[in-house]
Amino acid sequence: MRLEILPVLGIGDVTAGDDLAALIATAAPWLRDGDVLVVTSKIVSKAEGRLVDVPADGPERLAARDEVLAAETARVVATRGATRIVQTHHGFVMASAGIDASNVEKTRLVLLPEDPDASARALRAALRERYDVDVAVIVSDTMGRPWRNGLTDVALGVAGLPAIRDHRGEIDPYGNELHLTQMAVVDELAGAGELIKGKCDQVPVAVVRGYLTGGGAADGPGARALVRDAEQDLFALGTAEARVAGMLAAATLADGPGPEPADPAAVRRAIDAVADSLAPGTVFTLVTDEEARAVLTAAVPGWPASATGLVLGEAAPPVSQPDLVRFGADTQRLRVALAAHGVPSLLLPPPADSTASAALAI
Amino acid sequence: MRLEILPVLGIGDVTAGDDLAALIATAAPWLRDGDVLVVTSKIVSKAEGRLVDVPADGPERLAARDEVLAAETARVVATRGATRIVQTHHGFVMASAGIDASNVEKTRLVLLPEDPDASARALRAALRERYDVDVAVIVSDTMGRPWRNGLTDVALGVAGLPAIRDHRGEIDPYGNELHLTQMAVVDELAGAGELIKGKCDQVPVAVVRGYLTGGGAADGPGARALVRDAEQDLFALGTAEARVAGMLAAATLADGPGPEPADPAAVRRAIDAVADSLAPGTVFTLVTDEEARAVLTAAVPGWPASATGLVLGEAAPPVSQPDLVRFGADTQRLRVALAAHGVPSLLLPPPADSTASAALAI
Repeated sequence: MRLEILPVLGIGDVTAGDDLAALIATAAPWLRDGDVLVVTSKIVSKAEGRLVDVPADGPERLAARDEVLAAETARVVATRGATRIVQTHHGFVMASAGIDASNVEKTRLVLLPEDPDASARALRAALRERYDVDVAVIVSDTMGRPWRNGLTDVALGVAGLPAIRDHRGEIDPYGNELHLTQMAVVDELAGAGELIKGKCDQVPVAVVRGYLTGGGAADGPGARALVRDAEQDLFALGTAEARVAGMLAAATLADGPGPEPADPAAVRRAIDAVADSLAPGTVFTLVTDEEARAVLTAAVPGWPASATGLVLGEAAPPVSQPDLVRFGADTQRLRVALAAHGVPSLLLPPPADSTASAALAI
Repeated sequence: MRLEILPVLGIGDVTAGDDLAALIATAAPWLRDGDVLVVTSKIVSKAEGRLVDVPADGPERLAARDEVLAAETARVVATRGATRIVQTHHGFVMASAGIDASNVEKTRLVLLPEDPDASARALRAALRERYDVDVAVIVSDTMGRPWRNGLTDVALGVAGLPAIRDHRGEIDPYGNELHLTQMAVVDELAGAGELIKGKCDQVPVAVVRGYLTGGGAADGPGARALVRDAEQDLFALGTAEARVAGMLAAATLADGPGPEPADPAAVRRAIDAVADSLAPGTVFTLVTDEEARAVLTAAVPGWPASATGLVLGEAAPPVSQPDLVRFGADTQRLRVALAAHGVPSLLLPPPADSTASAALAI
């Protein structure tokens, strides 16, 4: 058993309206059933006319490029300087939405294919119907990734093989069940194709031979199966963007307390977290003792039925108007720290006959 | 030109102290100079004795596993449920620090090699010195990644080829300079090796033939070149973790204003951001007019020389003690929103003879 990775030489420049199946079948009459064709998305885009005219340079070029990028963007994921990492309408997370200015005239930008899975299926069907060869097709592009330098080629579109090889449920020789092993083989195939494309000059198509045992497979669900929804992703936003989102959540914190009992340890950690930021003399005291709480509950107007504890805050005496404002700010610091520790809270007036300046129901 | 990917069959089970070079050279007497050997990190770890004994099941197993994970962790990156994505001491960001319980006895865990680049260099040297074959070596492992379902194999250790193929500075046929294209070829080679390893059963070593033109290359800087430092990474923390970090930053906000003039548009956006969260009747007014600001500056005690503007806040009259506390909390909301918009601020007493309850220098 072996795999071979072969370059498809002599395809030349591709322009809008070109018949990719004819170009590839002519350049690679040696294609066989079961070959996996790895096709650089750029020639798919060019053949499909996914090009936009832009000025060759100057601020007009930048403005036009920004406009194109906005149109290709479903959601901004992270920004730093000129780098914009966005989720495209396909669901792919890529720098600049995969828009490319290389290997094209200076006055044009190349967009990703509108539906790379459909492009892969169409190319596969054309090769099968007109050239009688049943290959699988991967439309590939180059992507960066977090945490690791360097780019790799991955699959944007797939037809003729499943994007993922699923080992879940298999048992290893030691009797352990494999839990997590779903391999994104089409990304590995795209990367393997890039190895030969990158070694040669201007070779937009590679063939991986030996991975499939023959033709006849269904087109399958395509590369769409590789897209993880933002809600499922632990890295849906850049770190800086998520930090700002956390600050804005803090600024607009809603009134609690929540339906769950507050964890006294979390409350203490929150108090500790803000201690060094409080005006000198400000003290927050957690009251959870049942009897004391019952007394306080009766004394604090607006005490909510769902509250499970109380934090009493005292400003340093003597209390002036600016002191009370500062104390209110410190109380909000604590509310934010409580929220960061998963504890919703509600600001209340202090219990009657107490020296407290305010109370937080938690 | 072509690449071949070949499995190395018959290596069998590897245990601590095994001579990997001998096992591989015996199983693959057909190795040639310039072959790229892709070796699953697990057999490197096993040969190097990177195994830990743990209970086979129960809470004791979980506790032991947690302890092992903590020891392998340099920094926690993201957590959800039982999933822990951490940065290892090598710098790799991986689920569970790459600790693996598959393909090993139920009472043992396999850790990553302590220094996979050194492991790759040692294996390469042993094959060259004792078996007279000059190959490159990649120590590979399986990793998940953000945004895309499925795992791929990547390089943890490398000897005998550069981790990255750098196209920067090259000019394409259209005269465009390539700016960004640094390809992580060793990750693509590791993935290519996985394609054949995954097709076969229990094959821990693959060979990529044809990528290098022969032996004799330097060991090079290894896979360490692929590690991007957290400070350089836009996704150094999970989204949820970064949100919490943002909230804690809000809770412990330091006093400003900053050395840079505040952007009035950013201040207005910050006021708008909190408007719906303020107590009814609370009003914040931005004062940037030079003359008005000069009068206010004289009237506000503690006005800092670097401040470039003032936000006056008024609580709804008549002002009681709880109202002032609430107003202080609202002022802190605004300070946090200002910080989220990049505007540091400082809480001050109100100008004398004004109806304001507080002032923020910005």
